[in-house]
Amino acid sequence: MNRRQFVAGASVGVAAASALPMPAIAQGARELKMVTIWPKGLPGLQSGAERVAQSITALSGGRLQVKVFPAGQLVGAMESFDAVSSGLADLYHGSEVTWAGKSATFAYFCNVPFGLTADEINAWVYYGGGQALWDELSAGFGLKAFLCGNTGPQMGGWFTKELTSVEAFKGLRYRMPGMGGDVLRRLGAVVVTLPGGEIIPSLRSGAIDASEFVGPWIDMAVGLHKAAKYYYYPGFHEPGAAVSLAVNKKLWDSLDGTDKSIIEGAAAAENTRSLAEATAGNATALEQLVKDPEIQIRKVDDTILQELGKISGEVLSESSRKDDLSRRVYDSFIKFRTAAVRWGDISERAFLNARALPYPFGG
Amino acid sequence: MNRRQFVAGASVGVAAASALPMPAIAQGARELKMVTIWPKGLPGLQSGAERVAQSITALSGGRLQVKVFPAGQLVGAMESFDAVSSGLADLYHGSEVTWAGKSATFAYFCNVPFGLTADEINAWVYYGGGQALWDELSAGFGLKAFLCGNTGPQMGGWFTKELTSVEAFKGLRYRMPGMGGDVLRRLGAVVVTLPGGEIIPSLRSGAIDASEFVGPWIDMAVGLHKAAKYYYYPGFHEPGAAVSLAVNKKLWDSLDGTDKSIIEGAAAAENTRSLAEATAGNATALEQLVKDPEIQIRKVDDTILQELGKISGEVLSESSRKDDLSRRVYDSFIKFRTAAVRWGDISERAFLNARALPYPFGG
Repeated sequence: MNRRQFVAGASVGVAAASALPMPAIAQGARELKMVTIWPKGLPGLQSGAERVAQSITALSGGRLQVKVFPAGQLVGAMESFDAVSSGLADLYHGSEVTWAGKSATFAYFCNVPFGLTADEINAWVYYGGGQALWDELSAGFGLKAFLCGNTGPQMGGWFTKELTSVEAFKGLRYRMPGMGGDVLRRLGAVVVTLPGGEIIPSLRSGAIDASEFVGPWIDMAVGLHKAAKYYYYPGFHEPGAAVSLAVNKKLWDSLDGTDKSIIEGAAAAENTRSLAEATAGNATALEQLVKDPEIQIRKVDDTILQELGKISGEVLSESSRKDDLSRRVYDSFIKFRTAAVRWGDISERAFLNARALPYPFGG
Repeated sequence: MNRRQFVAGASVGVAAASALPMPAIAQGARELKMVTIWPKGLPGLQSGAERVAQSITALSGGRLQVKVFPAGQLVGAMESFDAVSSGLADLYHGSEVTWAGKSATFAYFCNVPFGLTADEINAWVYYGGGQALWDELSAGFGLKAFLCGNTGPQMGGWFTKELTSVEAFKGLRYRMPGMGGDVLRRLGAVVVTLPGGEIIPSLRSGAIDASEFVGPWIDMAVGLHKAAKYYYYPGFHEPGAAVSLAVNKKLWDSLDGTDKSIIEGAAAAENTRSLAEATAGNATALEQLVKDPEIQIRKVDDTILQELGKISGEVLSESSRKDDLSRRVYDSFIKFRTAAVRWGDISERAFLNARALPYPFGG
């Protein structure tokens, strides 16, 4: 996805902070500014930022007041990273893949093609060595980052025509950000970068043939199901897209143990709540979508998925050759992925396939 | 699983609280007693209870001091529920399936055969109406409960002989608690209840033929891989076993908003951390287990899984006929499950199956 761009013009550049009215806050309270990469009102993502902000305030008994600025209010979405790095803002709520221009390695802390599920990325970051590598990467930019949400498995996206073979990617105008876009380019697709607000008119006019976004809940909230007929799954590019909360590192280092616990704890709690909300939201939205006679929900053919898997492996491997840290992140991720796939095969995957067998249940 | 019973003699009955030395605590601090159903030192579960206790203390800046009593120290595992219900203790960390004797409906807030994955049970409880039903059930016993962890998909367990067909369950002496045991009984299995400490000698002596427990990480920590040769997957009985934290309801109602946020937030954060730790632990443990030439890791045949699915549906349906609340919990769970299965089929399951296709990756 490239959700930060959904509302055209969300990136309005650095606004003068002094022009914004600051609310009165209780005596002894400290105000923290959180910028986000999401447009105002985007369900799940901007609402998740607001929920974690309220949680920090609640956990601290009002001592930490977090004011949330959606994209474009204090700085533009793309400026959020620099705003927190420089101390203009205190925290950002976003998606690490957004900072690929700073370092391609950031993508690993959101997700990568044929990478990890939401549960697995949590396992890698919290208990598989991922956080220490992320800390090293972030510290180079004056940041300390935490996992703070996940929208779960992404859909492959909306297509105006059927995807029948690997050859069908040749010339296909497909909106797809990040390393997923790199994979598609090698199959001959014309990978397009479009602000989110232009997706629907571009699909309708035929200017593009396909676009990924998130999943049924958020996609339907913004109206994508009214712009294209075919909805393909699974999304190979982000099998569990993580959301992050980053703190200016000087600020982080200055906090006492309690405030550190509060920010870290609120982010971990939001990580659970966000994925749960997305899972419930997608399940409910899909119930509506399957009733829509205009929509065809289609599985990407296995021969296509195999080719996407092979090329994803090549793209990831090449991404690791930039410097020592990118190599160490890649090595850690691949080693963890190998073990996680083996365990996932006999646990989650085996159960989900068993549950999908035909048998009468309940009633 | 029936992990509370792993250490034989863990249930020692209600000890005189006054006999326990109470540590000095800082002035102004409040001490809360947390009892658990886990034996001292059990990885993931007792360690999870200790982690959430520390988290509550850290988030409150030391104002809430939580003292953790593993099973048998203040009360026995099976007495934890009554201890918190009566106010002898303030909180318990456990597994709701343990309280089936109070109401069979509690099992839904841990997990049930062919039920929900960890992500899905979070979605149902937090955003699908589950918490309100759980609150209603718990309030009847003077409790307020939260999700506070998950050990992920359970394995089918350890077998001393191969499971070749549905007929092989006839006379099979299988240690399996809860509704999973009810399912197996209908297939002719002799369902055994054994304290955890007796599983290994019973498998070795041939007194039992099979026993489920948790997954590779915890199973290997207690030595089950040294007692039986065949390790079957998937576990149909608990596809994502949730852990709970319950608070005495009078205490809960007396807390201010900040302390409520702290307990609820610490539980939600622990929910993420616990599943992440189990996922990483299982992946790492399985890497070792596959190298063990004595162990055969086997998939339960699809014809067997289909029959288990059908009977699971019957057992769940019958469990709903006790009273109005059990019917409403069942109806809510089944409605959510139907939507979650549909979404899971095109998201997590479709991705996991795509990732398992043969293709070269990375290197």
